[in-house]
Amino acid sequence: MGRFKVAVIEGDGIGPEVCRAACEVLEKTGEIFGHEFEFNKALAGGIAIDETGECLPEATVNLCRASDSVLLGAVGGPKWDDFSGEARPETALLGLREELGLYANLRPATIHMALKNACPLKEEIIGDGIDILIVRELTGGIYFGEKGWKGSKNGMKAYDVESYSEAEVKRIAIRAFDSAMNRQKRVVSVDKANVMESSRLWRRVVTEVSHDYPEVELTHMYVDNAAMQLIKDPRQFDVMVTSNIFGDILSDEASMITGSIGLLPSASLGEGSFGMYEPIHGSAPDIAGQNTANPIAAILSSAMMLRHSFGLIEEARCIENAVTKVLESGYRTYDIKDSYKIIKSEEGRESVNSMIMGCKEMGSLITNMI
Amino acid sequence: MGRFKVAVIEGDGIGPEVCRAACEVLEKTGEIFGHEFEFNKALAGGIAIDETGECLPEATVNLCRASDSVLLGAVGGPKWDDFSGEARPETALLGLREELGLYANLRPATIHMALKNACPLKEEIIGDGIDILIVRELTGGIYFGEKGWKGSKNGMKAYDVESYSEAEVKRIAIRAFDSAMNRQKRVVSVDKANVMESSRLWRRVVTEVSHDYPEVELTHMYVDNAAMQLIKDPRQFDVMVTSNIFGDILSDEASMITGSIGLLPSASLGEGSFGMYEPIHGSAPDIAGQNTANPIAAILSSAMMLRHSFGLIEEARCIENAVTKVLESGYRTYDIKDSYKIIKSEEGRESVNSMIMGCKEMGSLITNMI
Ligand SMILES: CC(C)[C@H](C(=O)O)[C@@H](O)C(=O)O
Ligand SMILES: CC(C)[C@H](C(=O)O)[C@@H](O)C(=O)O
Repeated sequence: MGRFKVAVIEGDGIGPEVCRAACEVLEKTGEIFGHEFEFNKALAGGIAIDETGECLPEATVNLCRASDSVLLGAVGGPKWDDFSGEARPETALLGLREELGLYANLRPATIHMALKNACPLKEEIIGDGIDILIVRELTGGIYFGEKGWKGSKNGMKAYDVESYSEAEVKRIAIRAFDSAMNRQKRVVSVDKANVMESSRLWRRVVTEVSHDYPEVELTHMYVDNAAMQLIKDPRQFDVMVTSNIFGDILSDEASMITGSIGLLPSASLGEGSFGMYEPIHGSAPDIAGQNTANPIAAILSSAMMLRHSFGLIEEARCIENAVTKVLESGYRTYDIKDSYKIIKSEEGRESVNSMIMGCKEMGSLITNMI
Repeated sequence: MGRFKVAVIEGDGIGPEVCRAACEVLEKTGEIFGHEFEFNKALAGGIAIDETGECLPEATVNLCRASDSVLLGAVGGPKWDDFSGEARPETALLGLREELGLYANLRPATIHMALKNACPLKEEIIGDGIDILIVRELTGGIYFGEKGWKGSKNGMKAYDVESYSEAEVKRIAIRAFDSAMNRQKRVVSVDKANVMESSRLWRRVVTEVSHDYPEVELTHMYVDNAAMQLIKDPRQFDVMVTSNIFGDILSDEASMITGSIGLLPSASLGEGSFGMYEPIHGSAPDIAGQNTANPIAAILSSAMMLRHSFGLIEEARCIENAVTKVLESGYRTYDIKDSYKIIKSEEGRESVNSMIMGCKEMGSLITNMI
């Protein structure tokens, strides 16, 4: 029995609808297992700009700090695209990461076998599935390094510093190896050590940390090769650990490879058990408010919250199983409507059983399966 | 009628065999069209370390400077992997780029329709083909910025500076727009302007250059999104232009998408007509000297040399057509032996016509087709 305070940042576009579905699922899980969730809403992103003039009001940061975890929908949209620099909705994301010390981004890239035909790669490459966990450093590197403009003899010059300290690399490496211990026990560390000094430090520290995990196999891979290997043979990967910018690129590449962007959750973790959980899809303003979004990524993000912030492993599994069951039964949202479940009759005839539904209905269906 | 001096850096692994095939093809093209090529060999990479102690001897740089173009095989191999920093074979590549001022890397990612089934993406994504030209900046950015180590309160820290000047961005943008004028007239500029100052400068300068090319359509794309779009819908791209590090990652991703790494050439161009031409595949030490390498990437690199350094467009096409003819007739090297040509008889029966051959034989076959 636990009581947990969850800050809910619905944000923009489809953020509110998918968050609502995720909260409903959490409520139900709480009822069954005897936990209580207190949800408190806060503003960030475009809606916060509209209502307060700032993309990340202090009140939001304070509420997050006073909570046990954060659920975030999505931020941004064309309405705010012309704001430059600080006032852009994405700045809210970077601000939350920095203010809340969320240095470890866990990005699972998995294929639900019921949706196998949505995968852009050929059958023989997918085989019996893809299951990668990308561990991306989230509060260091070129994102937060010194940056600016300078006059020079070639006109203006602009620069950004990629920099990593031993302590920063150590803590993210520990997260990666800890994750690997609960998985296939293989870590691929991605860097560009043939060119970058920060990568050489990265490689050295990751190697040092690996000595505390004798059961885990560590290999190093250059980022350009990693971008190729993800396509050539994604099944070779278990856990990948990498810097902020390389992780940004590779985690998006990996999620596209699964073909199921609308289903992928993420966790951004700090010291201790605090974390922020969000679907990896964007705010999709074109379909906002039409009840056509896919709530599964948000729902699976809430499962990650139960596991990583509250240590509720069984409860998390319960949600994940409900999602799998619903997909295997042929229920679909609009984004995955072409990934039919194909049913073979005993005589070998194939037929399709699929039922397309809205965001709210999909949320309720999963809630009822728990 | 022309006389051209070509420096040939065979390098390591399969470098020598594929260079030999490319030179043979150039010789033959010269005979037919009445040009003369003077080939002069030079050392770089592992073999240079073994013979001179340096991966890029001064004599090599001098010979390149005294030549009209450079043909490079491949450098590196496990034998030299333990050398750290300066003495590594890859340093030869970076040195050549810097010393010769090769700031524009042209990396075509194309599918030969005869090899369509080698592509890891599903048929419906490939459609009637992929034809992307990635224009990568090659002598700036984080590769050549200030870098080093510093003590800090968190232990050691290492850093690398990504930096671009207006002049650097302008000249690579011009290359991209010029290329687009001979193609589909669409340029996608890839950056991370929502996070990086150097990307904001990049975006501003590319936009300015675009005003001189009113016929070319310019769009901007974030690098994480570009990594996704290459998989989701590679046919949306014509020319992509980007920084050194993003180009490193995206060009390798794009080439893996074609499924034909052994066939892809590249050009690295400086001011004027001078250029260095090399297959994108590595030195493949495991198959070196066994006559099983694929010489096509090196041969197509020599075609790029004719086009970009010597302005011999018809001659270049002649080589490219010979390659296409050979592939369409079902001739294969070992790396693409599973991409059969499937022949349908009039009655609709399918059979396979393929003939697997060595590097030397493939080279001669293409030479004879010219
Ligand atoms: C919006 C942007 C700043 C952000 C990032 O690059 O980190 C996004 O791409 C992500 O991956 O969450
Ligand atoms: C070997 C390495 C330094 C090089 C690079 O990163 O530029 C290679 O990956 C390439 O793309 O030519």
